[in-house]
Amino acid sequence: MSPWTSAVGAPQLARLLGSQHPRDAAAASPVEALNGGRRVPAYRALADGVRLLLLEGRVPVAARLPAERELAAALTVSRTTVAAAYEALRGEGFLESRRGAGSWTAMPAGSPLPTRGLDPLPPEAAASVIDLGHAAPPAPEPWLTRATRGALEELPPYAHTHGDYPAGLPVLRQALADRYTARGIPTMPEQIMVTTGAMGAVAATCRLLVRPGERVAVESPSYANVLQLMREAGARLVPVAMTDKLAGWDIPAWRQVLGAAAPRMAYVVADFHNPTGALATEEQRRSLVDAARAAGTVLIADETMTDLRLDDVAMPRPVAAFDPAGSNVITVGSVSKSFWAGLRIGWVRAAPDIIRSLVAARAYADLGTPVIEQLAVAWLFNTGGWEEAIEVRRAHARDNRDALVDAVRRHLPDWEFTVPHGGLTLWARTGGLSGSRIAETGARLGVRVPSGPRFGVDGAFEGYVRLPFTVAGAVADKAAARLAAAADLVATGATAEAETPRTWVA
Amino acid sequence: MSPWTSAVGAPQLARLLGSQHPRDAAAASPVEALNGGRRVPAYRALADGVRLLLLEGRVPVAARLPAERELAAALTVSRTTVAAAYEALRGEGFLESRRGAGSWTAMPAGSPLPTRGLDPLPPEAAASVIDLGHAAPPAPEPWLTRATRGALEELPPYAHTHGDYPAGLPVLRQALADRYTARGIPTMPEQIMVTTGAMGAVAATCRLLVRPGERVAVESPSYANVLQLMREAGARLVPVAMTDKLAGWDIPAWRQVLGAAAPRMAYVVADFHNPTGALATEEQRRSLVDAARAAGTVLIADETMTDLRLDDVAMPRPVAAFDPAGSNVITVGSVSKSFWAGLRIGWVRAAPDIIRSLVAARAYADLGTPVIEQLAVAWLFNTGGWEEAIEVRRAHARDNRDALVDAVRRHLPDWEFTVPHGGLTLWARTGGLSGSRIAETGARLGVRVPSGPRFGVDGAFEGYVRLPFTVAGAVADKAAARLAAAADLVATGATAEAETPRTWVA
Repeated sequence: MSPWTSAVGAPQLARLLGSQHPRDAAAASPVEALNGGRRVPAYRALADGVRLLLLEGRVPVAARLPAERELAAALTVSRTTVAAAYEALRGEGFLESRRGAGSWTAMPAGSPLPTRGLDPLPPEAAASVIDLGHAAPPAPEPWLTRATRGALEELPPYAHTHGDYPAGLPVLRQALADRYTARGIPTMPEQIMVTTGAMGAVAATCRLLVRPGERVAVESPSYANVLQLMREAGARLVPVAMTDKLAGWDIPAWRQVLGAAAPRMAYVVADFHNPTGALATEEQRRSLVDAARAAGTVLIADETMTDLRLDDVAMPRPVAAFDPAGSNVITVGSVSKSFWAGLRIGWVRAAPDIIRSLVAARAYADLGTPVIEQLAVAWLFNTGGWEEAIEVRRAHARDNRDALVDAVRRHLPDWEFTVPHGGLTLWARTGGLSGSRIAETGARLGVRVPSGPRFGVDGAFEGYVRLPFTVAGAVADKAAARLAAAADLVATGATAEAETPRTWVA
Repeated sequence: MSPWTSAVGAPQLARLLGSQHPRDAAAASPVEALNGGRRVPAYRALADGVRLLLLEGRVPVAARLPAERELAAALTVSRTTVAAAYEALRGEGFLESRRGAGSWTAMPAGSPLPTRGLDPLPPEAAASVIDLGHAAPPAPEPWLTRATRGALEELPPYAHTHGDYPAGLPVLRQALADRYTARGIPTMPEQIMVTTGAMGAVAATCRLLVRPGERVAVESPSYANVLQLMREAGARLVPVAMTDKLAGWDIPAWRQVLGAAAPRMAYVVADFHNPTGALATEEQRRSLVDAARAAGTVLIADETMTDLRLDDVAMPRPVAAFDPAGSNVITVGSVSKSFWAGLRIGWVRAAPDIIRSLVAARAYADLGTPVIEQLAVAWLFNTGGWEEAIEVRRAHARDNRDALVDAVRRHLPDWEFTVPHGGLTLWARTGGLSGSRIAETGARLGVRVPSGPRFGVDGAFEGYVRLPFTVAGAVADKAAARLAAAADLVATGATAEAETPRTWVA
């Protein structure tokens, strides 16, 4: 229908392309890195690289690409090479051009969609492809069905209203407040807004607090969709590296960054961090809150993973416990990981004045969260069903984690990772190979994984993939075997031979 | 927690304050208009005006107000007057100030929230206040309960998945596509994305198409929440006046505006327009589409009201029927008005490439729409329950409309309006009185209505209120009687006597 809505500059595109080849960091030129030792024409390597960025969501759909001349200069290749690459991308449906309007990225029909955990497979592929794209397991039945039946019984009085509850149903706000109070942080219903998932909670907070150009400090790596949401809100992301192993938060680095950049907001997942699985200590929590307060930064604590403790470790107090005045911490939560993503119920806990502003601002977004799902979650909380459902979920995730760790250790002995005590993901270093290329090649071999750069700022973590605790036993073994085959192909530079974009589309 | 996130300039605030008094347009100075003939001190009139703008959502919460000196200059009043007004607002909790950071708007605890249709009343007030804030009726039972039971039966296979369907459930996409096909515009499921309400649909479209500063043409008046959503997206709204009566769309004006401004997008509600209830003719639809195509404008056709035909009028073909190539029209729809707002199910119909881009971009917003609600709506469409439910809804809306029209004619004989053939709202000209003041005074007398300026750009329509078809019989009569009492108080300038902000809060 129309041209581009955002633009990718030539230096940015060159940097993103260069980051696809971590082992070639010392290459003399971006194009040498682009080729990555593969015997393919330079234009083909360039087209492959752009396609990959697009399929991974690192270059958005409908983004204007640089003019051929500019990109040629940034990559130190001939303009002919860029023209041939663009022509190839046009032929494959990944690029559209119009005289006077330039060229912009597109998604050909039949392509899997970029971004997100990865999108659902087409039905014809679901049988043959192991999908490790989503860190989201099935619903812990029979609890979903029981909760929906419970909701149905509570529905009649609500059906007589207009159904529009911008702050959430009072019964659910009360239940959520009670849960926080029971965890040691006294909370009133006026401190709760129900949202459409944790993403809705973070989006609402960004709308209120982040003006375009504003700085937001984030863990590096961090939750991919939140990073992209913040970019779309105009935030300038300031990454703070997580330390290796599960120590996680490098407090001196956080102090330094918050002190120097004084960001408007900082976003942390202190409980079983996504993707590393790290669990912040109480001391780290206290230090993060203190540093945020000193810098005038609002700390967003995402508790989406909090209920997913898989080992017998002591749970530290919530981040908000270290901000008793409620002046510096906003907590967001969700049932998507601990119960089921299909419910789309999340929430914000904050000071009452912040909640009022968030609710007021909601008119310009989604207006409200569906009633039946809210009743179902309130039913779970108020009947004790939640605790039983979570036990089921934890047991499955624990089994899946152990099966995955075992399978990866056997099939990919040079991949490095630390086994987390909770959460839903393993963050694996891929032995120096490009995670993006492993992801692309894996997809051809019947296993889908998201590559590391989805979780980083500006192309970081190319040498990583994220593996979720969603498959067990023989499936985990087969997934690891396919990833090992993909890694072999990437290591030998043989990946360019299969030119068909995706076997499951055929 | 923190200072402002947006700012209101002194000239803008002066204009907004001036627009509250349409009868005083000829007043010598804004402050004279501000006083509006009432015998109250100037500072009190100014504080009242600002509070009113805030309660109506025309000045956002957490917005920085101009410095006292600047506002004094813009209003040609003394700085002492502005200082006293700000001090009064601070005392009432509507303003916060911090040295060096200025003053910003706030909502005191216990206040009804601004924006939206108007927000739900606190329970203690619901019995005594007639709420005409929402143009959203209760669910047409037993259909909501039946549909939810139907959803529960379909749920098991979905419960075994991760529950994450960014484009919507295939069964609902198919049902929606079939409904368009049956209406004469052949549609494939690939042309449908399910969203969280029509607001989610418009928000997604804005994210894809509207860059900050981009022009968007809108009907004037138009749907309040969409106007605000577009402002938040950075759009520069270009209003095109609706003609009086139900002729609605002034095609020469649309041609002129689209030709001259070449906006990126135009938003129209061609079926029972909100708030006027106008229904565009086929010729008007064809002309709007042709003008949009000629200007390179994407036309967003909101069909939220389409099913709400109340009289025996012929329904024109959908706007999209006049764009058979699918290159210029995006249709959005929702069950919120025709069935129940508590479901929060909406959708987009567009060309498959647009849908793919919208779905890809969704990762940075709400991720997806709840599964159970989607199954419930699919059940309604696939069983014929939808048609039966809609008949119930139409019959109620028709009765309510007739009761409302009758009551307003009796109690407010100088109010002018045209009775629409469908939709859910009456757009009433308030006999030269300020709609904002009638709304404020009405709230004290036990009737809540949204004032005209919510539906306009830059303070237009001060002399209007919107009345929804949501009450019948004696309640409609009582509502009109209370509005008449409010109008009397406004006309005699006696409104400032009741200083308590809202009787139902007490």
